[in-house]
Amino acid sequence: MKVWLDRKDFENARQRVAPVLHRTPLLSFRTLGDRIGAPVWLKCENLQRTGSFKVRGALNSIACLSDGERGRGVVTISAGNHAQAVAWAAGRTATRAVVVMPEGASRTKVAATRGYGAEVVMHGTAADAFREARRRSMHDGLTFLHPFDSAAVIAGHGSTGLEIDEDLPGGKTLVVPVGGGGQIAGIAGALAASGRVARHGAGVRIIGVEPEGAPSMRRSIDLGRAARLDATDTIADGLAPPMAGKLNYRYVAEFAEDVVLVSDAEILSAMRLLLNRAKLVVEPSGAAAVAALMYGRVTVERGRSLVALITGGNVDDDLLVRALREGAAWP
Amino acid sequence: MKVWLDRKDFENARQRVAPVLHRTPLLSFRTLGDRIGAPVWLKCENLQRTGSFKVRGALNSIACLSDGERGRGVVTISAGNHAQAVAWAAGRTATRAVVVMPEGASRTKVAATRGYGAEVVMHGTAADAFREARRRSMHDGLTFLHPFDSAAVIAGHGSTGLEIDEDLPGGKTLVVPVGGGGQIAGIAGALAASGRVARHGAGVRIIGVEPEGAPSMRRSIDLGRAARLDATDTIADGLAPPMAGKLNYRYVAEFAEDVVLVSDAEILSAMRLLLNRAKLVVEPSGAAAVAALMYGRVTVERGRSLVALITGGNVDDDLLVRALREGAAWP
Repeated sequence: MKVWLDRKDFENARQRVAPVLHRTPLLSFRTLGDRIGAPVWLKCENLQRTGSFKVRGALNSIACLSDGERGRGVVTISAGNHAQAVAWAAGRTATRAVVVMPEGASRTKVAATRGYGAEVVMHGTAADAFREARRRSMHDGLTFLHPFDSAAVIAGHGSTGLEIDEDLPGGKTLVVPVGGGGQIAGIAGALAASGRVARHGAGVRIIGVEPEGAPSMRRSIDLGRAARLDATDTIADGLAPPMAGKLNYRYVAEFAEDVVLVSDAEILSAMRLLLNRAKLVVEPSGAAAVAALMYGRVTVERGRSLVALITGGNVDDDLLVRALREGAAWP
Repeated sequence: MKVWLDRKDFENARQRVAPVLHRTPLLSFRTLGDRIGAPVWLKCENLQRTGSFKVRGALNSIACLSDGERGRGVVTISAGNHAQAVAWAAGRTATRAVVVMPEGASRTKVAATRGYGAEVVMHGTAADAFREARRRSMHDGLTFLHPFDSAAVIAGHGSTGLEIDEDLPGGKTLVVPVGGGGQIAGIAGALAASGRVARHGAGVRIIGVEPEGAPSMRRSIDLGRAARLDATDTIADGLAPPMAGKLNYRYVAEFAEDVVLVSDAEILSAMRLLLNRAKLVVEPSGAAAVAALMYGRVTVERGRSLVALITGGNVDDDLLVRALREGAAWP
């Protein structure tokens, strides 16, 4: 496989996924923009089908399989959003889907994954669950779908970047939450393939955001190779895989400008601001980019638009209540 | 003043308000649509500036004043959303705004109204507050802005109907929460002036929804004239004025097909479904149309689109928590 996907790869993926998904709105968020001195926009993938951006990559992955691969069924690993996305996308083509989820996974996400028709296996930590999914792939002949370290996943996620660039042409800075790096690699790759990534003027700057308790991509950048973490500790379950994807790391190293960190307390505060002022239900992972803007982790250039990727909205009621009760009011 | 606003009146109002407001998204809500057997769309005025649709009418009202009327300052009465809307719209033209709010008004709404720069006076019940606003108008020479019984307000709200009809052409049924009747009169009037209101085929059907505890428009239809209520009792603060507007009643009687009722428990259940599945923060008033669809108050024609007006998202944290904790899961 070639290392860099080209413009045609991203266009083909978009043509596969766009017709069955929502073109999610890009909403102005004045409360935040007025305070930090630049227009802020929210790309609302929490309003996407299955409640997160993950369905773009999952749908493209399954569409790219051969009939034989689909016929054997698929197996994947996910803390929840990729799980729901694969379950939903597999269901559309009556493909058997087995999803291994770590035992701490959100109840809402487990229930939704089963609701979409997948067989769910609860298994250990995230690292344990990765191994179990690989084992079932080899043992049961299921086609393994990697949740992020995959050209098909990255190509599917590229559609998000192309939509943003059409809805808000010109120079801007995208702030993108990073788990394994599927979404940031897709967005950066698609925009780079169109010649749109540049640090100045009318180009697009790309900044990643990770939780302090799961800094796999930040560590990778510092080490110069895709890193694994011995342990992770964050409320942002979607940003806590125990490693950065290898292919994803190469995209981030090449095309992203920086990867910054936010704390869980800052994420809770961002969830509350989004509930109270943007009127949006956003899960912890999805609020990370807004947290980075609220708490000064991203350099703001006066007048240059900032776009925060709101990656998902699948969150247990208890955690929503916690954000309302414990999330710090923005000072 | 002529009784019926014409197409040009609605177009002029739209040209005044649209450039400074959001074109709010019309989002597909599959969870609900799949269950009731027809496509369901949400017109998301909770994502409008100031957090509700009210700003459309307030902005047009202030734009239609003479310089002298604006110069004397304005006074209005509101449980909260019209209050914020007038405060914000007045602030844009440096117009003094006094807003009388009933003592039970939502803390969030009072704080936001003050935040936009209005002078807030807390005064008695909703009926008391109406009288106090009238008294201050006469005594202090302030220009009284009625929150709903006003041609300028109705003309401003018409823009919502025109946007929906452009985004989703063809036959559909609009389900519209009713307080004093500003939004439903505006939507019905604008669509009727364009020849789009009809009970069949490619026409638009319009159904109003009120809380059981504040059925002023339902009572008006039954009596054949705009009715007053001695008391109201509902969590839907935005739908609880003690009377239907006279002009509003005439629009509803002429162009709406029915006005149906929902309970507070059904509204809480709808708020929870919207939080969990649509990922939207919606206030009780704003969830009334979804409650009517969930609980079978609107006749569903297979395949014919239904549009629920999501009127606002300004809600105290305590009430959001209550919806999550007490709102019944949809059976």
